[in-house]
Parts: sequence; C-alpha cells; structure tokens
Amino acid sequence: MDHMATHFADRLAAAERAKQCSLCVGLDPRWDALPLAIRRRHGDRTLGRIARAYEGFCAQVLDIVRPLVPVVKPQAAFFEACGPAGMAALRRTLRRAQRAELLTILDGKRNDIADTALAYAEAAFAGSKFGSRTYPVWDADALTVNPYLGRDAVEPFLKEAVADGRGVFVLVRTSNPGARQFQDLECAGRPLFRHVADAVADWSRASMAVCGFGSVGAVVGATYPEELAELRRACPEVLFLIPGFGVQGGSAAAIGAAFREDGLGAIVNSSRGIIFAYQPDEPRWEQAVETATRQAIDALAFSTPMANLRLAKSV
Amino acid sequence: MDHMATHFADRLAAAERAKQCSLCVGLDPRWDALPLAIRRRHGDRTLGRIARAYEGFCAQVLDIVRPLVPVVKPQAAFFEACGPAGMAALRRTLRRAQRAELLTILDGKRNDIADTALAYAEAAFAGSKFGSRTYPVWDADALTVNPYLGRDAVEPFLKEAVADGRGVFVLVRTSNPGARQFQDLECAGRPLFRHVADAVADWSRASMAVCGFGSVGAVVGATYPEELAELRRACPEVLFLIPGFGVQGGSAAAIGAAFREDGLGAIVNSSRGIIFAYQPDEPRWEQAVETATRQAIDALAFSTPMANLRLAKSV
Repeated sequence: MDHMATHFADRLAAAERAKQCSLCVGLDPRWDALPLAIRRRHGDRTLGRIARAYEGFCAQVLDIVRPLVPVVKPQAAFFEACGPAGMAALRRTLRRAQRAELLTILDGKRNDIADTALAYAEAAFAGSKFGSRTYPVWDADALTVNPYLGRDAVEPFLKEAVADGRGVFVLVRTSNPGARQFQDLECAGRPLFRHVADAVADWSRASMAVCGFGSVGAVVGATYPEELAELRRACPEVLFLIPGFGVQGGSAAAIGAAFREDGLGAIVNSSRGIIFAYQPDEPRWEQAVETATRQAIDALAFSTPMANLRLAKSV
Repeated sequence: MDHMATHFADRLAAAERAKQCSLCVGLDPRWDALPLAIRRRHGDRTLGRIARAYEGFCAQVLDIVRPLVPVVKPQAAFFEACGPAGMAALRRTLRRAQRAELLTILDGKRNDIADTALAYAEAAFAGSKFGSRTYPVWDADALTVNPYLGRDAVEPFLKEAVADGRGVFVLVRTSNPGARQFQDLECAGRPLFRHVADAVADWSRASMAVCGFGSVGAVVGATYPEELAELRRACPEVLFLIPGFGVQGGSAAAIGAAFREDGLGAIVNSSRGIIFAYQPDEPRWEQAVETATRQAIDALAFSTPMANLRLAKSV
C-alpha cells in the first residue's frame, strides 16, 4: 500500500512533526467505564453488542483526538474480551484510525516461535499469506512484542515489519510495579532489561531511517524514570514507546530524558487518563476527552523537548 | 460450569489415566499443508472461507484423536491469521473439543499488566465480566502465559484460573533454537529460566491438587532434554507442557525424565507431526493422522513412565 512505502520511523517522525505532538492515545475500552449514554444505547446483552459499543466509543474518541495526536494504540486484550465480535470491532477501529490518518500501534504483546510468530506478524502488518494471495488482517503500523523467547522468535516480527515499512516495539521495561522481578535480575553485571535493550539496539541499527531512529523500538514505562534516562543514553537510535504516563503515575517531567533534543524518539501513551477523563454519567464526556488530551499535550510540551518538534524541518 | 468444579491438575490426571496417555495434539492449521480435498472444498477466496476450512479440518482431527488423547492445544496465532473469522473458528473448535470431552490448552502466550491481563484471563477461562454478567469467550481449560512482565502481571491469570478450576502454563524454557539468548543468562549464579521456574514452583504449591501437582505449570521444550530433567528434579510438583516433540526434534527418550514415576506430570505436545503426517494430496489423510497419533503414543509408552498410567488408581 502507498502509505506504507516509507520507513516506519520516518512516517512516525513526519506525523509527530505535523501534529507537533508525541502523545499516543491508548484505546482501552472497558465496559464499566464507558459513558452511560453509550452503554444504554447498546445494552449489555451480548458480546456482539458490547463489541459494537466499544467500536462506537473508539470511533468517537478517534474523531476527537485525530486533529491533536499522531498515533493511537488499541489494546488487543479489551477487544479479545468480547471474543470474535470484539476482534471484528478491533479491525474496524484500526481501519477507522487509518482513514483518519492516525498511525496505529496494536498493543498485543505477541510472542511465539518460527512460523507461529510469522503468523502473528503477517496478521499484524501486511497481511496473512495463503497460497499466492495476501489477506490484510489488522494492518497496523506497529505491534508490541515480548522478547522472552529470544532473537530467533522476535525476528519473524522484525522481518515482516521492516519489509513493509512497519514497526515493532519490544518490551524492555514494563510499567507495572512488579516489572523488576525478572527484568532487574543481574546477569553478567547488568540487569536483564539492559541485555534486552542491547538486542533491541542491534535490531534498530539494522533498520535505520532518515530521522535517525530504527524500525525496532522499545517499550519503557514512564513509571521508571531512571531507567528511561539510562536507556536513552545507552540506545540513542531506539524509539521508545512509553506507557504508564498519567493514571499509572508517570509524570511529564520524568519523561523528558527519553526524548532526543529535537523532540523525536519518544511516543508517550496515555489511555484511561484521556479516554475515561470523566464520570460515566457525564453528558459532555467528549469535551472531557478533548480537554484531557490537550492537557496531556501541554504537560509534555512544558516538561519535555516535545516542543522542539515545531522547530524541526520535515524529514 | 459443572465440568470445571474440580482442580485443573486433577481433571488432567483423570483424563490422562482414562486414556492412559499424556499426548497432546496441537491444532496448528496452516493453509498450505491442509489436505487438498479440504482446500478445494473451501476455496481460498476470503479469510472467512479459510477460517471455515481450518474449523472443518480441526473438527475432523478432533474426531480422529478424541478416543486416543486427553488434551488438545489450539495455537491462537494460526486462527488470528484469519482475523475475526479465524477467532470465531477458534471459539467453535474449542467448543467442539469440550463437547468431545477433550481438555483444551489455548496456546496464546498472553501477557500484560493488571486489568489488561485480567481481560485476557477472563476471556480465556470463566468468561468476561461486564456489569453483573459473565460472558464465556474461549472457555479453555488452560492457557499459555509469558512471564517477562513479572509476578504481578502473571497473577491475574493465576487467580482467574484457580478460581474456576483452570490451569496456566508459564513459558520457562521454550523449544526454539534461540531460547538460550535470554533464558540462559546467568543471574545470581543461575540461569534466568531457573528463576522463572522457581516462581512457577511457588505459584504451583499455592494451588495444589489431590494428584500432587499444582494448577500452574511450566512450558519446557522437548528440544532441551537436560533442562527438562533438571527442572523435574527442582520442581517435583509442577506440571510440564512439553512442545517440540517430533518435527522440532525432541525424542521420546529425551522426555522420560520429565514424568513422575506414576506417569503423570508431563503433557507432551505434537502438532505438525500428527495433523500434517501426510502429503496434501493424500486421499486417506485421516488414516495418516490416526497412525501418527498411535505411533507417538507408542513411542512415549515405550520410552517414558507414561505406560504406568494404566497401573494407577484414579484420583
């Protein structure tokens, strides 16, 4: 497809510069937090109706945030919670984001070996290959991937991504309180997550774009600001996808070190803090979503090099 | 549901003893390997038709293996490759296996944090909770889970599983050639996978069944026989799910050490070696599947304590 012609990192950089923004809105629909008006309209009698409610809600959120942010991140788990109907809603949500000229990061944390990893990767990116034909499935711009299985298990994702101008974000330091249990185990003098980060840096250097970042990025939680700064120093060419901003406790100030001086390099995700920035019975919830989005952007512009995006020449 | 009343490890033990068998058949449908007769019947024009072909193929495989084995393992990736229609085929395949009184392990290698992990777990097990109601989704007996995010991210899976008599298999040592890259990193004197195994053993002891195994098992590849033996010695109460038998190179002899003397404790998976034990143009492919299943069972009975299942009293 035409919009896939260029390198993922360059497409992302162009979108960030166009919107002067590094904020990613996480699409994490949860039934009990949806606006009451939407819940009432769809009822809660079947998974299909709940999936339709999620889709409708996400469509409204996309309409609100499309002029403001460059990228959205649907969370596969909340759609999977509605079964096949939920996956159909996920697919249509991804399509709608694409039509709205938003980049999409599918947060699936997928992982498996060999041909099985390839099946996930084809579905995520250019499409599943059956016989001589290719069938688009999720058609996302990027996917989150779990590295525990090792290089040969991650590589099918990388190959599929790079071949079609897509991106992969490998979990390095997750945002949860218990992330340290395995990720901080000291291995040969350095914690495990640094070994994973080294692998990500290698992969990233092998897929370098004009903007100076590779197609293979790292997930690094906003809830671990010291590690964010340490990893930025160690991996200057690795894109960071930063969850945990807002509700999970990561502050804008803590995230500053994750950016390159020109404002690129860090995609900061906020989910609940934006899409559920209201009480379910609030009639003007759309206004609350827009306000929360603008406030998050302002906070990042004030405390991080994101503001420098407006100074940059386009790539 | 009634069939979920007892502990997963006890249900598994009862099924293994009833069938005198520890073999798990992996349901990994791949379009290019399907019997030609099935491909011709369904055509390859849409993802929906391919998904229907997968479902029909899996249904025939289930009919063949149901008298022979206690458990099947659908691989989520190959169904996801067909998008929402594939997920619908996965759901119906799981239902069909359940009606055939086969236990089901959904191989999804899911992982995420907090409420997001819970969304995956509810979908996998008792059902998604929306408002005051519970909606069954995959309704599998067990799920594979990736541990990289740490204890607090794995626990939502464990809680949901244990509360409803289901099981979780945590990736410890995967079967791929590159598994050692991170899993063998030396941390505080022991490789990473041993630290993960220790966590699994803790979780397992907290969910003990009458048969002497817990609800939380470990995935340990047949392709690493030394680690299999080492882990069995270290974790006598942890169920092992063992991929990599057959096509990936793991031999029956290498697997023997993974069993307890009474024949319990190890579920040995074979996928391609059984479901694709023929050339696509072979008209009597069903016979080949049955023969391959019986041969795998015979090989395990000859080389492992599996044969002792027939001596055991039922739990």
